[in-house]
Amino acid sequence: MPGDAATGTLSYEQAGVNYDLIDPLKVTAQRAAASTASQLAHHGFTEVAASRGESAYVVDVGPFYLASIVECLGTKTLVADEMARLTGKSWYDAIAQDTIAMAINDLITVGATPLVVQAYWAAGGSDWFGDDQRSQALVAGWKRACEVCQVAWGGGETPALAGIVEEGRIDLAASCTGLINPKERLSVGDKLAAGDAIVLLASSGIHANGLSLARKLVERLPDGYLTEIAPGLTYGAALLAPTTLYSPVTEALFKAGITPHYCANITGHGWRKLLRHPAELSYRIHTVPPVTPVLRFIQQQAQQDDREAYSTLNMGAGFAIFVAAEDAERTVEIARAQGIAAWVAGEVEAGAKRLQIEPLDIEFGNDDLQLR
Amino acid sequence: MPGDAATGTLSYEQAGVNYDLIDPLKVTAQRAAASTASQLAHHGFTEVAASRGESAYVVDVGPFYLASIVECLGTKTLVADEMARLTGKSWYDAIAQDTIAMAINDLITVGATPLVVQAYWAAGGSDWFGDDQRSQALVAGWKRACEVCQVAWGGGETPALAGIVEEGRIDLAASCTGLINPKERLSVGDKLAAGDAIVLLASSGIHANGLSLARKLVERLPDGYLTEIAPGLTYGAALLAPTTLYSPVTEALFKAGITPHYCANITGHGWRKLLRHPAELSYRIHTVPPVTPVLRFIQQQAQQDDREAYSTLNMGAGFAIFVAAEDAERTVEIARAQGIAAWVAGEVEAGAKRLQIEPLDIEFGNDDLQLR
Repeated sequence: MPGDAATGTLSYEQAGVNYDLIDPLKVTAQRAAASTASQLAHHGFTEVAASRGESAYVVDVGPFYLASIVECLGTKTLVADEMARLTGKSWYDAIAQDTIAMAINDLITVGATPLVVQAYWAAGGSDWFGDDQRSQALVAGWKRACEVCQVAWGGGETPALAGIVEEGRIDLAASCTGLINPKERLSVGDKLAAGDAIVLLASSGIHANGLSLARKLVERLPDGYLTEIAPGLTYGAALLAPTTLYSPVTEALFKAGITPHYCANITGHGWRKLLRHPAELSYRIHTVPPVTPVLRFIQQQAQQDDREAYSTLNMGAGFAIFVAAEDAERTVEIARAQGIAAWVAGEVEAGAKRLQIEPLDIEFGNDDLQLR
Repeated sequence: MPGDAATGTLSYEQAGVNYDLIDPLKVTAQRAAASTASQLAHHGFTEVAASRGESAYVVDVGPFYLASIVECLGTKTLVADEMARLTGKSWYDAIAQDTIAMAINDLITVGATPLVVQAYWAAGGSDWFGDDQRSQALVAGWKRACEVCQVAWGGGETPALAGIVEEGRIDLAASCTGLINPKERLSVGDKLAAGDAIVLLASSGIHANGLSLARKLVERLPDGYLTEIAPGLTYGAALLAPTTLYSPVTEALFKAGITPHYCANITGHGWRKLLRHPAELSYRIHTVPPVTPVLRFIQQQAQQDDREAYSTLNMGAGFAIFVAAEDAERTVEIARAQGIAAWVAGEVEAGAKRLQIEPLDIEFGNDDLQLR
């Protein structure tokens, strides 16, 4: 609805994603998928049922748990393509990191060490791969992100899908497999409890969620992606800051003897993801991280109040780690030692399921997040 | 080049896939990927280097090997979409099986038992998922294929990618993770030897490779996809016969105590895939399986000689199992017990790397397959 969107408040749904159409399929698919768990018995294995509805799927294979996932980048390449046209440089090194982050940052929420990443690069035609600068950037960024996360790049697919993927475009995804080893690292289910601390890790910007909204806003900006949102920083370049990779933090925590009780990757649905754990618990936030400039800019341009912004975007916090209260300060130190800002932001309490962001006077209830 | 393609011989390259543009990127990506293997040492693991260049990537995690893969369906959905328009029914149950087969049939080549499949369903917009008949067919077919392969459907992604995936289309892929357990089941590397038998397993039709060519041919047919290629069987319906799932055969072989020395999934590059193993060995075929009607039809319409047809399409053999000669007949019996026709088709010999298909007087040399 371009007419409505030209001025005034712009919601995520107005930006083009209609969950009402996708969600019925999701529910059907989730039920069908759950029914296949019994197949593992043929091999002597069982699923970790609590991982259904979590960010990665976990199977008990005896000496350790096996975790796996496939994740799509989304539409962030459309920003990269437009910025390449405007600036003459390729942004696909950052895009590669974004794609890997989508998979890695989800996989680690269950306590897994990521081991292998597979690349899924489906182009609109063979021509896409003929742009040498762009291809090399994609490869270099992919390799570097694997190195940061200490995973092996196992291989992947580079299909040319004329007629399915649009000409000149590419559909990027990553699959990731890891192990939860020792098994005590598993962080789904019943570890989370009242009294735990909530540690938030800084985001680098929008990451790879909310891009439909961010792209829609460009229509309102006379200078489009080249609009300066801070001295020397364009809107497009700020959007393309690569997603932070959080596995160095979770691995460093393991080496330091700290086992998170739960983790939440703050992606779509913004801070509502803090309500992800199925238990009936309250989450009280007393410290809100500084908002990344590009996210503040989007909030202002979209004329969203804080409640809408925090329910859609990460607003400066890309990952949440729930730990025992006595481990909270050390968790922050360990994250900072990995170059990632972190804050003891709040605590888990007994009570009805809700998230209270006290400094902003915002509350989200159970009805605000239906992911399962 | 529609002018050239309207009559006369039609090659795979003429049908629209230009490997000259994709291959340089592939080489760069493969080198970068190989360089990341050392990252596994941070976790106390090592890659199985011989799996580089094979159909699935394998890591030694101690008690067993871990195998993983991501595979794209390709453009077969374009046939399903057109047939849905012409017949009013959805063909996405078959398409789901095709997608899973792409991943499963590759994963099992290294000796792995598939355990978990993840779904990657990237649509051109939320609307795609709103077509209830189609969505339900996709879910039902996906579930059934998981059951046939005795794998758990772990979850997946259902993004709406307007601007990247074309409106009304869907980009389908599957990732799969499995274990090689016991480790003796690993079938990459040095098990293959002169004297081994080559057992071929029947295909159900075109499977999911060569679809660009098959679609191009429709332009030559006055009745298009509704052309009868056999009484009561249209070209479109024949193309959409779901890809055979071969993991029930490899699992039954394991239970019978037969360990394949090597396996080749016959996909793109047709029978040239029989040359996949890196060793210097000759492959002599004395028995050629009957050609699936739709493949014979394509060969005739594209005016391909046998050499070109066998170098592009599976021509009735979807999977090759290389076993010790004394296990060959039992391998055939075990495949047939799983409902899949099979033949002892030839043998491995010492000598220069080449494939001789004696009944057809065709020979392929080392230069005919460059996959690594």
